Order: sequence, then structure tokens, then C-alpha cells
Amino acid sequence: MSRWQPDARGRLAQAAMELYGERGFEQTTVAEIATRAGLTERTFFRHFADKREVLFEGAAVLQARLVEGVVTAPEDAAPIEVVAAALRSIAPIFAERRPFARQRRAIIAANPDLQERELIKLAALAAAVTTALHDRGVGEPEASLAAEAGIAVFRVGFERWVAAPHDGPALDEVMGELFRSLAAVVGEAGAG
Amino acid sequence: MSRWQPDARGRLAQAAMELYGERGFEQTTVAEIATRAGLTERTFFRHFADKREVLFEGAAVLQARLVEGVVTAPEDAAPIEVVAAALRSIAPIFAERRPFARQRRAIIAANPDLQERELIKLAALAAAVTTALHDRGVGEPEASLAAEAGIAVFRVGFERWVAAPHDGPALDEVMGELFRSLAAVVGEAGAG
Repeated sequence: MSRWQPDARGRLAQAAMELYGERGFEQTTVAEIATRAGLTERTFFRHFADKREVLFEGAAVLQARLVEGVVTAPEDAAPIEVVAAALRSIAPIFAERRPFARQRRAIIAANPDLQERELIKLAALAAAVTTALHDRGVGEPEASLAAEAGIAVFRVGFERWVAAPHDGPALDEVMGELFRSLAAVVGEAGAG
Repeated sequence: MSRWQPDARGRLAQAAMELYGERGFEQTTVAEIATRAGLTERTFFRHFADKREVLFEGAAVLQARLVEGVVTAPEDAAPIEVVAAALRSIAPIFAERRPFARQRRAIIAANPDLQERELIKLAALAAAVTTALHDRGVGEPEASLAAEAGIAVFRVGFERWVAAPHDGPALDEVMGELFRSLAAVVGEAGAG
């Protein structure tokens, strides 16, 4: 029944996601996660620092890849193109994970603390992209604006992608469409 | 020496800001704030729910004014113009408060919990603006993108305004300039 590899980490993650969905994040204990996975609490803590890390373990990898995408973008690319290219480069990470992402989204939506953690993650991504743009020689306010615009597209795009059916457009297509919409929306700003 | 009105609320707020700056937010107690203001703890709690509220008491008013600005913007304005007009309408709130804003910014920068609270405040502003745009009949993704872009301009603009000298450009001028920069930055997005 499981599509997870039967490794300890995967079993723990799957058990945790099931329990968070069934009982709520707050109401689930590490002991219950371990029991459902057929493992011990000690094994859980060998793989995850705490309950929350099951939901946020991908954040560091995501940030590293995004920064790498900024660093390796073509030298003559405009700042917003650099950010768009970096976001395209992380889209494949999510390709096979729409069911997980949907499950995760529902768990986070039900818990204010997790929502805060998600906001902090996104703010950290924007800050990392801004710094990587500075390192490419992009000045201010262009670096901050390009990074903030890109993370806004990622956030809105991810929501749309998660809510779409399995055969809907891929995340990079959704984000590409949103970059065009953003250009149209922002381009309507008057001179004031 | 004080430029505050000698009312209890103002004296408490001033005492709190001084102590947060001198000792750090975490290290300051309500008892110390009350003592410095020459008042009692009980009086503090008549005016503020907790220590943090001294720094975030303006959030509700800010959000209400911003939404009012969206509601009352000209009927034929494009979504991003509506958001820009709403942001212009809140700028006067800050006009005389640059020293306070600078002090507040330093206190928040020194404390991760307060930074989180600030992120949550900004996310709530973006969500409120998005909803107010929906109520004007703006669809998705235009409403989310216009709101996110506007709050990004507010965030970046506020930082620049706070860091600028007293006779520097006003907040609404800074934001107007940033809307133009954002249009230029985002307009460079390719068709991909």
C-alpha cells in the first residue's frame, strides 16, 4: 500500500504525516509516530530533531538549490530572469510530490505555529536570494524587489499547483504564467 | 526632555522603548517599565495586553486604514494602482514617527520572536489587501500578486525610509519610486 521506500526515515515521515492529518499536529506525540512506524522514539530522534522537522526538513535543501540557481544563471540575465531561472531549477524537486505537498499544506493550514514557521521559511528564502543577487553585483532596491517578487510568485504558484489536479500544469509552468501576470499587474502602476 | 505627551499610555510606551533599547526586549520586565514611567504594573496592563503590544499596537489600525484605502480607491483604478493608493493613504501615519520607527526597528532586529511577529503582521496585511481586492471584483491571481507586490514595496520602502535622515524623502515618495523600480525589474522577465 505504501509508496514510500521501507527505510526507517521514510516510514517515520509517512507515519507522522498520517497522524498529523488524522489527529492534528499538536495532538500527535513522537511516541505515537514511532509506534505507527513500528520503530522506537530513539530512532525517530536519530532522523528528526522534533515533530516539526518532518514538515520542514526540505527547507535547507530548497534554499541551497535556489541560491545555486541564482549563482549559475547566465551572466547577462536581468535580476528577475535570474530569480525566475532559480525557481525553475527547484521545480523538479516537487514534481512527484504533489500528494505530499497537499497533505503538508492541509496540516500547516490547521496550525498557526506551523503557519508562522512557513512564513519564516519563505522570508529566509527571499533573504538568501537577495544576498545571492548582491553577490552577482545586483544593487538595491533591484535585488530586494526581484527576490521578493520571485518568492511571491513561488508562494502563489505553489498554492495553485498544490490545489490543481495531478495532471494539471507543472509547477514551473504555473510560475512562468505568474511571472507574466505579475509583469502585467505591476506594469499598470501609474507614475504616482 | 520628552517629546511624548505626559499621559500614562505615552509614558509607559516611552519607558518601554527606552528599556527595550538599553537592555533588550527579553530582559525587560513590565515592573521595570512601570517603575521607569512612575506608574504601576496594573496601569501598564490597563493600556497594553503585554510587553509586545507596545511594539505592535499600531498593527490593527494600519490594517484597517489599508483596507479602507483599497475600498475607497477610484472605481476604474487597476489593482496595483488601488494598492499603491492604499499605501499612500497610510504613509501620513508614519510622517512624524521616524525616530520611533528607527528605535522599534532596532529592537525587533535584535529579537527573533519579534521578527516572526513582524512577518506575521506583514502577511496579515497582504491577506487583508487580497481580500479587499476580491471584494472589488479583482480575480486571481491578480489580487494576490498586486497585494504581495504592494506589501513587498511597503516592506522594502519602510526599511529605506527608516534608515534615511530626517530630511530625506517621505515614505510615500520612497514607495512611489519603488513601484516604478518594481515595474522596471519585473518587466524584464522573459517569456519563459
